[in-house]
Amino acid sequence: MIIVLRDDATPGDREALIRRLSRLGMTVHESEGMGGRILGVVGDEDLLHSQSLDSSPGVERVVPLTKPYKLASREFRPDGHVVHVGPVAVGGEKVVVMAGPCSVENRADFLDVARRVKAAGATIVRGGAFKPRTSPYSFQGLGKEGLQILAEARDETGLRVVTEVMDPRDVDLVASYADILQIGARNIQNFNLLKEVGKIRKPILLKRGLMTTLTEFLMSAEYIMSNGNYEVILCERGIRSFDNATRNLLDLTAIPVLHAWTHLPVIADPSHGTGKWRWVPPMARAAVACGADGLMVEVHATPEAAFSDGDQSLLPEKFAEMMRDLRKVAKAVGRTL
Amino acid sequence: MIIVLRDDATPGDREALIRRLSRLGMTVHESEGMGGRILGVVGDEDLLHSQSLDSSPGVERVVPLTKPYKLASREFRPDGHVVHVGPVAVGGEKVVVMAGPCSVENRADFLDVARRVKAAGATIVRGGAFKPRTSPYSFQGLGKEGLQILAEARDETGLRVVTEVMDPRDVDLVASYADILQIGARNIQNFNLLKEVGKIRKPILLKRGLMTTLTEFLMSAEYIMSNGNYEVILCERGIRSFDNATRNLLDLTAIPVLHAWTHLPVIADPSHGTGKWRWVPPMARAAVACGADGLMVEVHATPEAAFSDGDQSLLPEKFAEMMRDLRKVAKAVGRTL
Amino acid sequence: MIIVLRDDATPGDREALIRRLSRLGMTVHESEGMGGRILGVVGDEDLLHSQSLDSSPGVERVVPLTKPYKLASREFRPDGHVVHVGPVAVGGEKVVVMAGPCSVENRADFLDVARRVKAAGATIVRGGAFKPRTSPYSFQGLGKEGLQILAEARDETGLRVVTEVMDPRDVDLVASYADILQIGARNIQNFNLLKEVGKIRKPILLKRGLMTTLTEFLMSAEYIMSNGNYEVILCERGIRSFDNATRNLLDLTAIPVLHAWTHLPVIADPSHGTGKWRWVPPMARAAVACGADGLMVEVHATPEAAFSDGDQSLLPEKFAEMMRDLRKVAKAVGRTL
Amino acid sequence: MIIVLRDDATPGDREALIRRLSRLGMTVHESEGMGGRILGVVGDEDLLHSQSLDSSPGVERVVPLTKPYKLASREFRPDGHVVHVGPVAVGGEKVVVMAGPCSVENRADFLDVARRVKAAGATIVRGGAFKPRTSPYSFQGLGKEGLQILAEARDETGLRVVTEVMDPRDVDLVASYADILQIGARNIQNFNLLKEVGKIRKPILLKRGLMTTLTEFLMSAEYIMSNGNYEVILCERGIRSFDNATRNLLDLTAIPVLHAWTHLPVIADPSHGTGKWRWVPPMARAAVACGADGLMVEVHATPEAAFSDGDQSLLPEKFAEMMRDLRKVAKAVGRTL
Repeated sequence: MIIVLRDDATPGDREALIRRLSRLGMTVHESEGMGGRILGVVGDEDLLHSQSLDSSPGVERVVPLTKPYKLASREFRPDGHVVHVGPVAVGGEKVVVMAGPCSVENRADFLDVARRVKAAGATIVRGGAFKPRTSPYSFQGLGKEGLQILAEARDETGLRVVTEVMDPRDVDLVASYADILQIGARNIQNFNLLKEVGKIRKPILLKRGLMTTLTEFLMSAEYIMSNGNYEVILCERGIRSFDNATRNLLDLTAIPVLHAWTHLPVIADPSHGTGKWRWVPPMARAAVACGADGLMVEVHATPEAAFSDGDQSLLPEKFAEMMRDLRKVAKAVGRTL
Repeated sequence: MIIVLRDDATPGDREALIRRLSRLGMTVHESEGMGGRILGVVGDEDLLHSQSLDSSPGVERVVPLTKPYKLASREFRPDGHVVHVGPVAVGGEKVVVMAGPCSVENRADFLDVARRVKAAGATIVRGGAFKPRTSPYSFQGLGKEGLQILAEARDETGLRVVTEVMDPRDVDLVASYADILQIGARNIQNFNLLKEVGKIRKPILLKRGLMTTLTEFLMSAEYIMSNGNYEVILCERGIRSFDNATRNLLDLTAIPVLHAWTHLPVIADPSHGTGKWRWVPPMARAAVACGADGLMVEVHATPEAAFSDGDQSLLPEKFAEMMRDLRKVAKAVGRTL
Repeated sequence: MIIVLRDDATPGDREALIRRLSRLGMTVHESEGMGGRILGVVGDEDLLHSQSLDSSPGVERVVPLTKPYKLASREFRPDGHVVHVGPVAVGGEKVVVMAGPCSVENRADFLDVARRVKAAGATIVRGGAFKPRTSPYSFQGLGKEGLQILAEARDETGLRVVTEVMDPRDVDLVASYADILQIGARNIQNFNLLKEVGKIRKPILLKRGLMTTLTEFLMSAEYIMSNGNYEVILCERGIRSFDNATRNLLDLTAIPVLHAWTHLPVIADPSHGTGKWRWVPPMARAAVACGADGLMVEVHATPEAAFSDGDQSLLPEKFAEMMRDLRKVAKAVGRTL
Repeated sequence: MIIVLRDDATPGDREALIRRLSRLGMTVHESEGMGGRILGVVGDEDLLHSQSLDSSPGVERVVPLTKPYKLASREFRPDGHVVHVGPVAVGGEKVVVMAGPCSVENRADFLDVARRVKAAGATIVRGGAFKPRTSPYSFQGLGKEGLQILAEARDETGLRVVTEVMDPRDVDLVASYADILQIGARNIQNFNLLKEVGKIRKPILLKRGLMTTLTEFLMSAEYIMSNGNYEVILCERGIRSFDNATRNLLDLTAIPVLHAWTHLPVIADPSHGTGKWRWVPPMARAAVACGADGLMVEVHATPEAAFSDGDQSLLPEKFAEMMRDLRKVAKAVGRTL
């Protein structure tokens, strides 16, 4: 950590600060020739972070030298990490596609869509049983019944199942049905939920929040990992911007940046990322082209009758067409799909 | 609800849509003279919202005619609503000041600060026992011990107590100690937590999220109210912007806008809203000048030693000075403080 | 245009509004069965837009039925438009690459880079002679001397030349040297400059501003086109966001959305879009994968000595490597490069 | 300037960097005990800024120690600066109110409004003769005729006149009629226009752009000042956000922050800052309460017939009422109005 003192810091400010840092067990190096404004501090940076040094008299700025995340950092596993979901490997050569409706609405329709996305090449089926909705008056999901339908779809198709958990009290229930537990964008800093899914031994799909910086995103992954669960998949799904041309703003640059900063696999959700089925195929191609390890895509047989997010759901036949196009792009960047 | 059809919608699109709306029990009025592009739809708008009409063939846009929130709307209680917290009335003529440290750190310091903010005119003391921290390695709060210290401060000073609850499993525990339960910015769309605090009978302080529109803010209040708890206080505490000149961007215009849209009391938190104690007094004055029903302010006797948010904490003497200035502004706008 | 009246609009409000619209030559259709809240208005929407109808007593909302841009709309040329720059066609099957240093710094280095980007497959060379710099103390470009070097590079290599014009007084000068005139992000709503480049007969490369909605972007194109110059190329170059992980936030979804809304060619600038040379190749691949008609890329032989934007400049050999990879992606989506 | 080297920087990276800095005439201080990762560099920081040091091999981060603006900084004139506009002093004890219609529409209406805002206490009248409009089809202002009407209003009422200049070619013309030249939000980084108004000797009202950081704002002031014109008034007028509840997001915290960073006077424009006349009085009160040196407010006798911005214009009688309320707030914070 470097501490930059203010132009007008007094010798007293300086000495008081150095005394305080020494008491905390830190070694302070005073930089020569910079007008005495620079202090180098060696010691436990986490402890330093908790010290509100910015507000000490005479301090202009504190420059950390270490990243706040450890387990999630690329340095922790320089070769990258593959998350195994039964036979499916997320983070390997093959781009993994997770597809299905926004919500599980009923047994017959869900099984039908599951079969169709499998036929087109998906290996994981998605569907919400617990739905976070802006309005308390909107459909909130089928709950446990939805989970049972998801499990039935797995049994029948062999697809693995991903579904969202919203409440720390539901973690065990959801984990008993799902193969991957999804933490939704709105819960990216629901720290108690993150801790709870950190205690189980199933992969977690962590979706970036609407306003989450990439550093904060990795800190949320760190919450899960520091509780013992290292199997985290990151998902870019669009952030909020000033333009309502699309529902969210898909930040695809996050994919290569995250790949440089962390060893965790990174996938993209172009359905939420754009909010219109029409933009899903081109943005899915773009995501694969810049290195996404997977895609999460909403597919619905009758989007105009969907209980939620019909606007952004692809018809099964459009999904199949997209998959064919994606295979060419995957090959062009040295991967399979 | 009005449905605007696309320029190139076919007669078939149009008829299919009208049939579908009719099956849902809606009455459809076809506007003459607008090229057949306008349909007026009368019926349950909540049901209509769930229909993904935007994605129906031929539809360009859907224009709702009703607000998505009901219980939180100004129309529900045109004269406004006062939330009573023991002897303290939030939403009346008197501007209510809630002050105290970010976290409860220990008994002695907390009682000391409580006495000092009371002496300066605060009527509610704040302090976090459960702390939402970006890093899993940061201080997470004293938990139950912190709640006990809060209760002791109330007993000794007569101040009422506000503190955050982060987990639906902790709602009863926190409610057994606190007078107001705070929902933090990061949990603004933690819907299960909102439902849970909707079931108790204590006032809720709901903080706007970093990326929450005012409509979404009221929808989150609606979650609490539709579960039975009508005693909600809204708190503007800064949103996220592109400029890091301040920690957050305090959106004071939200105060008069919310007062027009809802009957709920609205307060401001200039400590989180700016992130620097230096900007707190001017922004507190501004908040009162534009109609805030209260303020939440961080005060700490030794900010540079605070476990969290020291940068934005006022010294008790600065707080007292600010209170004196605020009284003049309150008077200038016809209120007391 | 549809006008939605407020719930509490009086019959007087309603009649006054209808009278006013009639005086303007509009036909007003009153929708039945919607509580009298809906008025359909037929007439010149541009005239209507100038009427501040939103502020008329009793009006809740005005819903336009036509787009504010005409000449730039897809409807104007449903088959799309190809901008010809000498032998180079922007908007056709071939993805056009424009490359070169941020600034023209001296003759020898510029000619050297021009030759190298040509060898790698670029058909247009870029380089700034007039530089918009945040600081008045930074290098402001070589001006006319820079233009002469650009022209010399064209003569020697056969590459076409694109360079920025910042001042309406310089339009003729720049047009006498350059093949494409670039309007930079900071001048996206410098309307007098847009009008001035609308009067010449050379293609214009219009870069989206940091905070420009896609509708505003097309309105700025409309300024150029309505002055007579239809040869406009749009360039997505990143917008501003809350996260400083990258310099700007490249909004690649803008590419398919703009292709749907307008007939103008759309290219991407991943150098400004990301701000780091390391992220340029993956995002260039993504741009091609989602349909970009071209790319603008910064290349510099000694980035660490560049007068501006060295951080985001590729070395010529990295550029050549990227071009090889891009050819595969272009082929995968049915194009050449 | 401090340079932080990467963890994995090689001794070769380090030596090459030190050699390069030495060649530029810099003195390099190597901090001991920080793993050799910290270099302190003393020399001309402007020269250093132009060196793209961030992109040098082995460099992680560059931390500047000086602000990029000099003439605009508070340090340049610690006691603050008062801009004199004839008899009106902006930046003194008295809060200065500038009021009038968005556009000058015709002689009679403008003179009428000028008289009425004067009667209510305004000392400067505003009105646009050159209008920056998003659409080329909207009213673009009366041009020179508008300037003549402005001058006539000054002659008749004694009010001083502020109006916008959009084009470097119009600076002399506008300066021959107006007392203050306004640079609009869209031209905040139109550097050639800034240079041009830097050459005249009339006060400049510089409006913050929709996406301008406070540092960039001061850099744009620096452009004007470094060309010789020190009489700059800054105006906060709302920035762009993700919420469309208001037209823009008024960032009132900018007022105390700018007062700390610069000696220039700072005013607020709550009309553009909110976009609705209804929110103007509360936000004007808030601006005065947090230290604004002045206000710019739109007033129109028939807002629903305004050629532009009718929604945000106050009726003259509402303006007079607001002025009465503002006097009380000004007094409460130790100022007059």
